[in-house]
Amino acid sequence: MKKLRKKIFGCAPAHTVFFGPGRKEFHPKKPRPGIEHYILEAAKDSVAQVKNPGALDQGVVGNFMAARFNRQAHLGALLPEACGELLHKPCMRVEGACGSGGLAVIAAANAILSDMADAVLVVGVEVQNTVKAMYGADILAGAGHYSRQRKDGHVYFFPDLFSRRAGAYYEKYGREDTRRAMAEWYAQAIENARRNPKAQEFHNADPDPRATAMTEPNAKAFLEHINVFDCSKVSDGASAVILASEEGLANLGVAKSDAAEFAAVAQCEGNLARDPEDPARLDTTAAVASKALAMAGAKPSDLGLLEVHDCFTITGLLALEAIGLAEPGRAAPYLLDGKARFDGECPVNATGGLIGFGHPTGATGVRQVGDMVMQLTGKALDCQVKIGDARPYAMSINMGGDDKTLVSFVLRAT
Amino acid sequence: MKKLRKKIFGCAPAHTVFFGPGRKEFHPKKPRPGIEHYILEAAKDSVAQVKNPGALDQGVVGNFMAARFNRQAHLGALLPEACGELLHKPCMRVEGACGSGGLAVIAAANAILSDMADAVLVVGVEVQNTVKAMYGADILAGAGHYSRQRKDGHVYFFPDLFSRRAGAYYEKYGREDTRRAMAEWYAQAIENARRNPKAQEFHNADPDPRATAMTEPNAKAFLEHINVFDCSKVSDGASAVILASEEGLANLGVAKSDAAEFAAVAQCEGNLARDPEDPARLDTTAAVASKALAMAGAKPSDLGLLEVHDCFTITGLLALEAIGLAEPGRAAPYLLDGKARFDGECPVNATGGLIGFGHPTGATGVRQVGDMVMQLTGKALDCQVKIGDARPYAMSINMGGDDKTLVSFVLRAT
Repeated sequence: MKKLRKKIFGCAPAHTVFFGPGRKEFHPKKPRPGIEHYILEAAKDSVAQVKNPGALDQGVVGNFMAARFNRQAHLGALLPEACGELLHKPCMRVEGACGSGGLAVIAAANAILSDMADAVLVVGVEVQNTVKAMYGADILAGAGHYSRQRKDGHVYFFPDLFSRRAGAYYEKYGREDTRRAMAEWYAQAIENARRNPKAQEFHNADPDPRATAMTEPNAKAFLEHINVFDCSKVSDGASAVILASEEGLANLGVAKSDAAEFAAVAQCEGNLARDPEDPARLDTTAAVASKALAMAGAKPSDLGLLEVHDCFTITGLLALEAIGLAEPGRAAPYLLDGKARFDGECPVNATGGLIGFGHPTGATGVRQVGDMVMQLTGKALDCQVKIGDARPYAMSINMGGDDKTLVSFVLRAT
Repeated sequence: MKKLRKKIFGCAPAHTVFFGPGRKEFHPKKPRPGIEHYILEAAKDSVAQVKNPGALDQGVVGNFMAARFNRQAHLGALLPEACGELLHKPCMRVEGACGSGGLAVIAAANAILSDMADAVLVVGVEVQNTVKAMYGADILAGAGHYSRQRKDGHVYFFPDLFSRRAGAYYEKYGREDTRRAMAEWYAQAIENARRNPKAQEFHNADPDPRATAMTEPNAKAFLEHINVFDCSKVSDGASAVILASEEGLANLGVAKSDAAEFAAVAQCEGNLARDPEDPARLDTTAAVASKALAMAGAKPSDLGLLEVHDCFTITGLLALEAIGLAEPGRAAPYLLDGKARFDGECPVNATGGLIGFGHPTGATGVRQVGDMVMQLTGKALDCQVKIGDARPYAMSINMGGDDKTLVSFVLRAT
């Protein structure tokens, strides 16, 4: 196990509103800000939190598909526009589908560990409401193995892949409790998002989200094993965070108490050209979680906050099992017992997660790290959970594709 | 000036044929290999050069626009298919337009310097012949500031940006010698490519490329200040190389004599949202070259081999001035004196460069590093130049967009 050769901290977290259907002010026919607006808003909000932006040595942008959603690549070259101090310093964009944001944080961590940088600005961004959902589904299929999987694939390509995972899980472990647990996941996501003014579901006023989420899946109208409430929505948004060494924090003029420390930085890649051996399991997620926990010297019962990649409710359940919080097939009782709730023993996605906060794909991995920093520095406002000494670690899982690009971080308070 | 905290080596260079118009076997209507084929061919060729592929700790893919040319993103997740030993290890794709390949090498260097990896497989790839040139020009405009520049831009967006740079240069320094030097650049590219069986222009049999390249630019048929011979062509291809620490080389089973050492690793980012102050100058290129030379402790006269990013002949001239090999406005006499020739004091683009070898955009920065490794280990076959003690360094400049993402490496023999 490789260890972190020096300390890395996260600070200056910033999110734009995560925008799209569900927000009161969203209207499909009304003009909306473009991708550059989002990058600049998040980056400037983050940079404004440090005393000395000149101490920033590098920049990274995590983005999945601006090439198709916005016809714009080369997003690293927008960072010097967002922060003039980055002109002629190293900037790059990284991509691993919906794991792009996590990879951006990985790239920043590597730059700091390499001694090439002491402070790195990280921005994750995606603006997806530029096309209709059906075209968007084709664009997002670029996260899969397009040449092999797309031709005979479902029009809703990714929802279908996870519907099939849900079907396999029902078959292996039973359908009834699983469906109830998926509805519980949805309801918690909405309830958490209602505390978060930047969340896409902040305005969701459904009096009984558990009942809503129990809507029977309908293969003719959508998919066989999941309904629309099991899916994260199409979102526009950006998040930013600054990674720094101990020296970098001092140079930036950020107090250590305004930062959280990385206890683990982990990444694992699956093989895009192969289907999962057992669709009721997330193998690459299990690999990255085990790597991250080992690096942090922690076990699942040490986790006091979890950010998981619930692109679909079933993915959330599978992630709990991959991390080891629940035994295989036991995610449903774990959830139905309330352990993942806002006031549970290990709150999951306290700001809403992908289903509640929203899922601007390239932003998500950065958003997770930013939210963990806010929680561990006591700045999560109405979303603040209590992270005690018994469970001092926060952990994130960010996923690209169908269990292919996996990034996990473990953070703790300074 | 940050220094490399430990030694980094490059080894196991591999290139596919760089394919497209100009190759005898190319026919626009005949089926061609897809992007996955190129990634696998280059990666496997590289990996086959090491005794123990299990020592590979990570993988990086440099790619610009597979999202639009091939509808495939998430290319990092194809590395475990190319090399099973990378399954569940960290892999990512990086992007900075035509500087994507250089950024992939930067990411690999950071991973090694960070102590997170001792050996990293780097693949650069682009497959662009999937669409007609006019659509391709729109796709490539994603390397520019699309929302601002594209609407009123020329149909051949990037060639036009550099035609305007050429016009500004003619005005400032004179047209006649400049045009002759651009033709000299073209001719050297073709002559060098004829020694390189993998080059797109390998089959070029033009008896007088200098005369051909003097064809008068024609604004009605193409562009005002440059002709088609001033432009690199549309290419499909991939290159791979392995970066390793000293320990990594040993673990891979690669002899030090089969590797070259990195003396400098440099990157600088320009601001995508701003036009150049003086179009007759490459400011970001000058910044990255000066950074790389400082890190290597070298001066321009120490360079015995140069790989520059001649997406257009004028870019080649401007790069020589940005590096400091020629004073501003003096690239023409430098070239016409034969200093950049295959047998000159500092051969430039000895395997053909972007105009002669070809320019599969995401591959180019990796290709340059691979070619420098081949030259410094004496394995460049018919393209081998003599790199003596008086000028022991090889240097590359890889550029994304219009002088925006700049990557430079300085290498020397072990």
